[in-house]
Amino acid sequence: MLLSDLDADGILRLTLDDPSRRNALSEAMMTRLTDAFTDAGQNPAVRVIILAANGPAFCAGHDLKEMTAGRAGPDGGRAYFTKVMAQCSGMMQTIVNCPKPVIAEVTGIATAAGCQLVASCDLAIAADTARFSTPGVHIGLFCSTPMVALSRNVSNKHAMEMLLTGDMTPASRAAEMGLVNHAVPEDALRAATLDMARKIASKSSMTLATGKRAFYAQREMPLAEAYDYASQVMVDNMLADDAREGINAFIEKRAPQWQDQ
Amino acid sequence: MLLSDLDADGILRLTLDDPSRRNALSEAMMTRLTDAFTDAGQNPAVRVIILAANGPAFCAGHDLKEMTAGRAGPDGGRAYFTKVMAQCSGMMQTIVNCPKPVIAEVTGIATAAGCQLVASCDLAIAADTARFSTPGVHIGLFCSTPMVALSRNVSNKHAMEMLLTGDMTPASRAAEMGLVNHAVPEDALRAATLDMARKIASKSSMTLATGKRAFYAQREMPLAEAYDYASQVMVDNMLADDAREGINAFIEKRAPQWQDQ
Amino acid sequence: MLLSDLDADGILRLTLDDPSRRNALSEAMMTRLTDAFTDAGQNPAVRVIILAANGPAFCAGHDLKEMTAGRAGPDGGRAYFTKVMAQCSGMMQTIVNCPKPVIAEVTGIATAAGCQLVASCDLAIAADTARFSTPGVHIGLFCSTPMVALSRNVSNKHAMEMLLTGDMTPASRAAEMGLVNHAVPEDALRAATLDMARKIASKSSMTLATGKRAFYAQREMPLAEAYDYASQVMVDNMLADDAREGINAFIEKRAPQWQDQ
Repeated sequence: MLLSDLDADGILRLTLDDPSRRNALSEAMMTRLTDAFTDAGQNPAVRVIILAANGPAFCAGHDLKEMTAGRAGPDGGRAYFTKVMAQCSGMMQTIVNCPKPVIAEVTGIATAAGCQLVASCDLAIAADTARFSTPGVHIGLFCSTPMVALSRNVSNKHAMEMLLTGDMTPASRAAEMGLVNHAVPEDALRAATLDMARKIASKSSMTLATGKRAFYAQREMPLAEAYDYASQVMVDNMLADDAREGINAFIEKRAPQWQDQ
Repeated sequence: MLLSDLDADGILRLTLDDPSRRNALSEAMMTRLTDAFTDAGQNPAVRVIILAANGPAFCAGHDLKEMTAGRAGPDGGRAYFTKVMAQCSGMMQTIVNCPKPVIAEVTGIATAAGCQLVASCDLAIAADTARFSTPGVHIGLFCSTPMVALSRNVSNKHAMEMLLTGDMTPASRAAEMGLVNHAVPEDALRAATLDMARKIASKSSMTLATGKRAFYAQREMPLAEAYDYASQVMVDNMLADDAREGINAFIEKRAPQWQDQ
Repeated sequence: MLLSDLDADGILRLTLDDPSRRNALSEAMMTRLTDAFTDAGQNPAVRVIILAANGPAFCAGHDLKEMTAGRAGPDGGRAYFTKVMAQCSGMMQTIVNCPKPVIAEVTGIATAAGCQLVASCDLAIAADTARFSTPGVHIGLFCSTPMVALSRNVSNKHAMEMLLTGDMTPASRAAEMGLVNHAVPEDALRAATLDMARKIASKSSMTLATGKRAFYAQREMPLAEAYDYASQVMVDNMLADDAREGINAFIEKRAPQWQDQ
């Protein structure tokens, strides 16, 4: 259901592997993903995470059959839906809060919560054949949780067009809109993602974790507060061993040796 | 002054029709617009709204002669300007708060509060000959209320360039910046807007209203709060009749029949 | 270290002039910049500010040798770094809070706090040979304060790519991302910046100051609050002499004569 492969450079490749269900975010899949990101966040051997998928769909969102079965309860499903939505939103925030950078490697279609999954990653590279949509509006169920992540990546009118029409957005336009960083030929995708991952994996994990956490924290603050906070982060970062080593290595024109390497 | 035409698909076409005054937002025009959006929001027959205009100007902003006449009061116009600004800001927010999606169909120039009108709509398609500006700076009156809407659509430096120079932005660049969704040849504009409107009109009005309200609400929240809120919206949406019908129709591979159709 | 030249149109050209240190933001340079922006803000003869640089680097960020020397204190540098970060963040906010519009004219590389300097200006035009990066991650010191300004200019994924990889962004992509307004041929840069500056310098300084302050203030407010605030700004602006003069001049089809001209 979820393949996991850690290479010698500290690049963890997580692969959604439930192609017959279009890698739907079933309860089981969400549990696996949450656990994988939580474990990777705590594992010093993991420096960067790539989230990829097998099959024609990157991820088709929630498992509609499971959701429909959830209606059977005496409350018409309210308790079940509440649990599933909390689980899904928690999983997405596990990615945002994971101290390791996460890169989505997108092939095929990424729809509904699958599109949200891409938007929730720090970085994303898509095959030029990939497509994105928030199609809940077709079935009477607006993509309200996907839009939380989507609207923090693209401008209001672009987000609204995807949400109100449910139309597919091709990878090239997703790149222009800021939903993904780059759209590349399908046969160059894996190399492009790996290249970006290797570059990031060569950095200090402490520094990456510090910066990623600070990025999302300061983004929600007014300017003056953001500067006070980020200045404190910089001071602490300067006093850390990896910054001392990194700056010395730079001045001495040699490669740095990070604490955790 | 404001033409109104509702078709059989539930598409309401509102047309600014005061071309000799370049569709200026006179007090009378703002009253008509506020009433039209308020009524449309409450009318179950209306599913989507297109805002279009007759004449060479989509809308040239406030009526400067009316504003100048307003200076005649003993307070130099303070009470009058306060009333007019409240009316205008209220009208713009009526569009944002209207439960029906609103698409601007822009021909000619959209300037000052006319540019704000486009920015305040959920979606916008422009003729490739259309142009946008916030030219208040030319007359000593910074476009401070238009910038509220503008800066929620485009990046800071793009907004600042329009505001500080007062220069015209052609439709193609407005599309790149995110101020409009698409720029299309002038003779294809009406068909493009209608196509988008028809697509949206085929959806459940309950779902569209739920999603539009949630979009603007969550956009102003920090991430964790936005997820808590949107998860609750999703649960309520799942329990609504139209979602049950939509999901069943999808599983049964048939067209859904919404409650209000 | 910092050249200053005020022309007859009220355009103040500040030029970073420490090319042998790649215009690093040493303590001395930050003091000079803060004083220059503070003075220009209070000087009625200054209408617009251009920030340019001599040498192959626009600005390479903090002075790493100075920072390293700062470690010598008994606290390992904590007090020193705290002072330097406060000084730097204060200088950046002096630009944002300066009542005169500030245009960055970027040649060469703008890295780390040098990239932040560009992001902090209201407008920016870059030579098409210019390049931008936040490379702190290479030396174990995440660009946490630069990201405050960067992330308020470009989308999350674009900012994250620069921050996590430390890669150089060419001027053309910086323009697409919104970090700069335009990328122009190197030999057309100075004319392009001057043209934009002249246009802005012809406006009422009172109006520009009102609008710039309101822009950044409203940007941090929820929509309804932003409209209440901006409406009040508009009313006060309408009652100012320069708006009365500007509107009369417009109606009378003549050039306005601002109070401070």
